[in-house]
Amino acid sequence: MGTTQADLTRTAGKPIHCKAAVARKPGEPLVIEEVIVAPPKVHEVRLKIICTSLCHSDVTFWKLKDFPGCFPRILGHEAFGVVESVGEDVHDLKEGDSVVPIFLPDCAQCIDCTSKKSNNCSKFEFKVSPWMLRDGTSRFTTVDGETLYHFLSVSSFAEYTVVDIANVMKIDPCVPPNRACLFSCGVSTGVGAALKSAKVEPGSTVVIFGLGAIGLAVAEGARISGASRIIGVDINSDKFEIGKQFGVTDFVNSNSYGDKPISQVINEMTNGGGDYCFECVGMGKLVQEAYACCRKGWGKTIVLGVDKPGAELTFKSFDVLHLGKTLIGSLFGGLKPKSDIPLLVKRYLDKELQLDKFVTHEVSFQDINKAFDLHVEGKSLRCVVWMDK
Amino acid sequence: MGTTQADLTRTAGKPIHCKAAVARKPGEPLVIEEVIVAPPKVHEVRLKIICTSLCHSDVTFWKLKDFPGCFPRILGHEAFGVVESVGEDVHDLKEGDSVVPIFLPDCAQCIDCTSKKSNNCSKFEFKVSPWMLRDGTSRFTTVDGETLYHFLSVSSFAEYTVVDIANVMKIDPCVPPNRACLFSCGVSTGVGAALKSAKVEPGSTVVIFGLGAIGLAVAEGARISGASRIIGVDINSDKFEIGKQFGVTDFVNSNSYGDKPISQVINEMTNGGGDYCFECVGMGKLVQEAYACCRKGWGKTIVLGVDKPGAELTFKSFDVLHLGKTLIGSLFGGLKPKSDIPLLVKRYLDKELQLDKFVTHEVSFQDINKAFDLHVEGKSLRCVVWMDK
Repeated sequence: MGTTQADLTRTAGKPIHCKAAVARKPGEPLVIEEVIVAPPKVHEVRLKIICTSLCHSDVTFWKLKDFPGCFPRILGHEAFGVVESVGEDVHDLKEGDSVVPIFLPDCAQCIDCTSKKSNNCSKFEFKVSPWMLRDGTSRFTTVDGETLYHFLSVSSFAEYTVVDIANVMKIDPCVPPNRACLFSCGVSTGVGAALKSAKVEPGSTVVIFGLGAIGLAVAEGARISGASRIIGVDINSDKFEIGKQFGVTDFVNSNSYGDKPISQVINEMTNGGGDYCFECVGMGKLVQEAYACCRKGWGKTIVLGVDKPGAELTFKSFDVLHLGKTLIGSLFGGLKPKSDIPLLVKRYLDKELQLDKFVTHEVSFQDINKAFDLHVEGKSLRCVVWMDK
Repeated sequence: MGTTQADLTRTAGKPIHCKAAVARKPGEPLVIEEVIVAPPKVHEVRLKIICTSLCHSDVTFWKLKDFPGCFPRILGHEAFGVVESVGEDVHDLKEGDSVVPIFLPDCAQCIDCTSKKSNNCSKFEFKVSPWMLRDGTSRFTTVDGETLYHFLSVSSFAEYTVVDIANVMKIDPCVPPNRACLFSCGVSTGVGAALKSAKVEPGSTVVIFGLGAIGLAVAEGARISGASRIIGVDINSDKFEIGKQFGVTDFVNSNSYGDKPISQVINEMTNGGGDYCFECVGMGKLVQEAYACCRKGWGKTIVLGVDKPGAELTFKSFDVLHLGKTLIGSLFGGLKPKSDIPLLVKRYLDKELQLDKFVTHEVSFQDINKAFDLHVEGKSLRCVVWMDK
């Protein structure tokens, strides 16, 4: 990776001048600028980012004109990096460690983080803050002293970034960087939703609303779990060919049935609904459709998609009571970052979890806006951005 | 019980003239009349009702002016009886068997009834029909030939009734009749919701909205499961003294906090919410409150209450996704009538499940309207009506 221990320690304790891709205005191309990255404070580490990948949430917040959108900001939250230096009271990480940042905090100490059942840290509430987790300040400034906002506690669209120890985990250095970064968010979310939130059983029928990267990761998780039928629902029929690589067996174009509710189409195809229905788009209406076509008696609807702020979900009370279905919210696929991601990494190293097919494009850091273009045009699943290339 | 095998077989194949308490007009006292109960058809059995108990749904449908309310009707669906005669193709029941009718069909053959995961029969859809399950006709007429409607496939407010074999199960005759009838609906629903739908774990905190018989049965199920804290929520503070007998440890009068949402009260009491929250009233607003005070990360909200037709439940999409909670619909407590009720009966015979405290009143058949009065006045949990006394 072109970074020696000597390189890393030379900068410890000092501000680092480096390049970052700064989102200055909603929806406008990122600007690669020189920025200053402060040294890590207590319980923080500074990372040299090796590569980063673009996730849908980056694009969402890049476009967002109102709070929690804010500018100028360093976006990016899927990455692989190496610890450049550590702040005070950091015991489990040291310079040179291979790491993956995770937007979802895992303090490893609170009732939730020490419970096997929750991934919802009580010490650090998950929120899309523009600041560092503990002291609510930024580690980024421009050379002119302008403060730059953080994103999702990661901000990986920079050669260096500072993250809290609650937002970073070691990863086996055997994992190639451009695969390691996928564990940070989208792929883990989808695979986790199938394996952990839903606990998909062998032989079951799975329905996936939205065949973007998260939906395809659900398919990958369902495939690993031995699902016998994986039905993909999307408005773009090209997704079926892509989906087949991930185990999708049937495709439904939701624009092809006129006024007929898509839940009815699925119910007819499956003789009563899917065992597990995943909503990966972030539209309340689709959650309701997913619920309406999950099997009475035992069906589970798993909500992964991020809807607009203030959006609501409405269900018929009679249906909820009488049909015996389950509705589950699945943030980050229900995964506990520090204990569950290593299990996914093992599945990858064992060649059970297939990641190569998620990486459709790779670009150099100076071409980061191409990654945005590819995503917006629906051409990429994951575009890896290499910082040193 | 004063009924010999000889008595029973004497009537087989013939219409039986007997007394029934007929609901003739919404909300008006039942009228005890002579009715004619036709012999059972194929896959049906005729029961001599020994005793019946009044459930909240009887009262709801007694008051209901519009469909699915209909009159004249023989209400009642919690009962203990003895098989008087069987129709064609009835192989698992014979004259003299001790039985309990169950409103929820269990055909024992379809994909749902043969699955361990579902109690939602696919052969016979659960609905509040005024007719027999298979042929959509009535077995009741008055001496003047007027057709009387059935209720919930049981109609136990009569000395004799006809039920489908999908709606009746044998019960160990060691169980006293006035305890056996409790397994038909409300008590099973509450206990089942705790044991089967929620799977309450030892040491957990349970919140119960509504301390009627179903809510108290949830408390009994939670007590059996080893819950360490059982919080009852009701608008009637008298319920706390009653609740204590069922294991309720804390009481919240939801009328005592002004504009403060009751979910906030519970969240403060429990430092973040209950592990399992049960809605036993049938009000959408309370389901939402229950959801709002079930523990992020692992909390389950279990819906038992029957809301008005067309009622809706609304949740914030953000909360559903981010808080990792689960919403479960629990019809009949998630119990499979023919396989799970015997397990509850065993718990009763083993003196683990305590039923005596549910029976607060007992009346003779001629005083059945007193049972309604006691229920409407909130004075009874279960009033057993004895047919022969």
